[in-house]
Amino acid sequence: ALGTPKAIELWLDLVDDPVDRADQLTDLTREEVVQLARTIPPAQAADLVDTLDLHVAVDATRIAPPENAAAMLTRMESDRAAALLRELDPPERERLLAAMPTERVQVLRGLLQWPEGSAAAHMVPDVVTVQDSATAREAIHEVRTHKAKLRQDSHIGAYVFAVDDEQHLHGVVSFRDLVLADPDVVVHNLVEHDVITVEALTDQEEAAKVLVKHRLLALPVVDGDNRLLGVVTSDDVSDIVEEEATEDAERQGGSQPLEVPYMRASPWLLWRKRIVWLLVLFVAEAYTGTVLQAFEDELDAVVALAFFIPLLIGTGGNTGTQITTTLIRAMATENVRLRDVGRVISKELTTGVFIAAAMATAGFIRAWTLGVESQVMITVAVALACIVLWSSLIASMIPLLLKKLRVDPAVVSGPMIATVVDGTGLLIYFEVARWLLPELGG
Amino acid sequence: ALGTPKAIELWLDLVDDPVDRADQLTDLTREEVVQLARTIPPAQAADLVDTLDLHVAVDATRIAPPENAAAMLTRMESDRAAALLRELDPPERERLLAAMPTERVQVLRGLLQWPEGSAAAHMVPDVVTVQDSATAREAIHEVRTHKAKLRQDSHIGAYVFAVDDEQHLHGVVSFRDLVLADPDVVVHNLVEHDVITVEALTDQEEAAKVLVKHRLLALPVVDGDNRLLGVVTSDDVSDIVEEEATEDAERQGGSQPLEVPYMRASPWLLWRKRIVWLLVLFVAEAYTGTVLQAFEDELDAVVALAFFIPLLIGTGGNTGTQITTTLIRAMATENVRLRDVGRVISKELTTGVFIAAAMATAGFIRAWTLGVESQVMITVAVALACIVLWSSLIASMIPLLLKKLRVDPAVVSGPMIATVVDGTGLLIYFEVARWLLPELGG
Repeated sequence: ALGTPKAIELWLDLVDDPVDRADQLTDLTREEVVQLARTIPPAQAADLVDTLDLHVAVDATRIAPPENAAAMLTRMESDRAAALLRELDPPERERLLAAMPTERVQVLRGLLQWPEGSAAAHMVPDVVTVQDSATAREAIHEVRTHKAKLRQDSHIGAYVFAVDDEQHLHGVVSFRDLVLADPDVVVHNLVEHDVITVEALTDQEEAAKVLVKHRLLALPVVDGDNRLLGVVTSDDVSDIVEEEATEDAERQGGSQPLEVPYMRASPWLLWRKRIVWLLVLFVAEAYTGTVLQAFEDELDAVVALAFFIPLLIGTGGNTGTQITTTLIRAMATENVRLRDVGRVISKELTTGVFIAAAMATAGFIRAWTLGVESQVMITVAVALACIVLWSSLIASMIPLLLKKLRVDPAVVSGPMIATVVDGTGLLIYFEVARWLLPELGG
Repeated sequence: ALGTPKAIELWLDLVDDPVDRADQLTDLTREEVVQLARTIPPAQAADLVDTLDLHVAVDATRIAPPENAAAMLTRMESDRAAALLRELDPPERERLLAAMPTERVQVLRGLLQWPEGSAAAHMVPDVVTVQDSATAREAIHEVRTHKAKLRQDSHIGAYVFAVDDEQHLHGVVSFRDLVLADPDVVVHNLVEHDVITVEALTDQEEAAKVLVKHRLLALPVVDGDNRLLGVVTSDDVSDIVEEEATEDAERQGGSQPLEVPYMRASPWLLWRKRIVWLLVLFVAEAYTGTVLQAFEDELDAVVALAFFIPLLIGTGGNTGTQITTTLIRAMATENVRLRDVGRVISKELTTGVFIAAAMATAGFIRAWTLGVESQVMITVAVALACIVLWSSLIASMIPLLLKKLRVDPAVVSGPMIATVVDGTGLLIYFEVARWLLPELGG
């Protein structure tokens, strides 16, 4: 419906909330975005750009006439513009940079030099700095002259940083405290000198954690010499947190992170991200075939034993998955630390004993309703109890062990624990059967 | 080590970063916290309180002498103090409220009346309001007089709200724009009149989403008549997001959310939160026994079929878990909507065909290495392909179906999908076997 400049203008007038605009734009098909990017006048394009999903914006940039794309990129917040440019191929990127004002190009090239995922790649270089020796009045004047550059973003202007001639960071003061102070007081006497900073190459997730922990609006990024490079603002935190949570969820579900929004992932990409873990788990699970073949005679003698295979290994896997997901989450939020290993295992084994008792009872009842012989009922109950305990032990130890080895415990997915428990659970089951069933010499 | 007032004083001097203090206090055992709460002088207690984990603070409040506890609660941010009081039993709560200044008690009772999980329960009532008709100069003076009340928190003072005599919200202006404006301009002409607000009973998660989407520092909470009650500040967003992410992760792992930090959960609580789903899944999984019993003759005739049971149903469960976790996350981040159902299913089935081909090959190789007869190899390969496709269909439809029925799709856990696929997967396996194996009349 947004096919003509007139229609676009009407729509921009009608829908003036940026969030509503973004919602409606997400509903457009790819073809409609292409059409929009072709017809929209540069001024309106710039107006729209902050509302676009990054991946839609990348498409639009590729398709739009160069002057539109360059206008968009000049107007966007510099950290977002840099993130967008990262998604383009080098020749496309250079073509667009060539069409932008020199000053802007310098800023963007500065950001692009930092590796993706570093704090510096997410920073806004437009910060308000004043000399240590300035007065509060002079500092406020400095903010006033920067007003246009700071635009509407209240995060960037929240703090004023005191620096020396070489941009070394000496202190920080909130804009409010600056305003409410005596206008003649020297900035040096106003600022907090113990500034919380991160270095440029700090991981983005780490920087987000520091921002959240200290409840800051903006976190200064410095180089190795404590020179101020820019700030990471707290409004980026939710993007970073969401990105990391999506990656963790995908890993927990037993696949590699997609790295693009689901709706933009092709079947081929989905296949690549999933097949690796499926094959690894398949090879690991193949071990169950070897176990069952080894007990072929027992299965032949008491075929009823086979009835309970999925139930037993399924329950073992479920018990383990419950534990690892809870534990991995508790480790991610720093509620569980490495030195808690003893308390975790004893807590889980105690819980496991009660769960084992409940599940053994349930297993006995189920075997009874299937009408198998009483020795098999007992075998099922005992095996279930042992499998639950075994699974509790394995599932509580593996994440802690990985942490000890400095591997992110989030790599342990539900499917992985289920696979580990499946083969070993079958071994337990048939050993219990051998021991309890008269047909098998028990 | 913090056993005497002297030691505590030394420690407070030595460790002056609140985040470091919090880290070190988390390392204390319960006994040490009790000891600390008993010996610490009220002034220091107040100093410490913002650094404590809420659950540790609750313990400390229970144990500390009433004057210490009341000093703590008076000094804390009011939303945190209310959250803490919620955790206490009514008589304990009343005893503490009785020991606090009247003005403070009024504020806290005001917050406690709102249901847990509502936006209003998380708000800070101390906001800066000015009359519509005041000048910018008068408004800044108003902020100055509130300085003490706003303390160090730069979120609360970031906006100034224009109200009328009855606290009806008329507009909002950032503190910065107020300062940089002409001092004689009337507030009415400065403010943005289209204020983004939430109602008091809005869900906390919804309020956090609005804050993030609009990149606000503070979100005004209003009553049904648009009267300003307080603000939810953006520094609470990460707490809310983290809380919700933990609940989702626990659900995805197949248990009910714990609602307390893991290290504080007793084995008895863990048992209660886990056993419900374990039993539900057990009952559902019990169906596999019925399927296997129905195919007892086939199992008796070709016992080698049993070797592949865990491998086949395991792969089906893994395929399904990969899909549901990705999809549920994409729905939570609003990348997938209900109207995308056709595109999701066709995407997943296309991916499923390629995965089926790969897994069928892997299954054939595995059957060959186990040395079973060639008809069984083909049966395993064909059954694996069918199970993967079936699992893809089920796993992509269930979350969308739940969404359609207005049920949160996050209730679909990995274990649940695995259970659904297990029984049906076995049916597919034995039907394929009947059709392909000469021994079974195929």
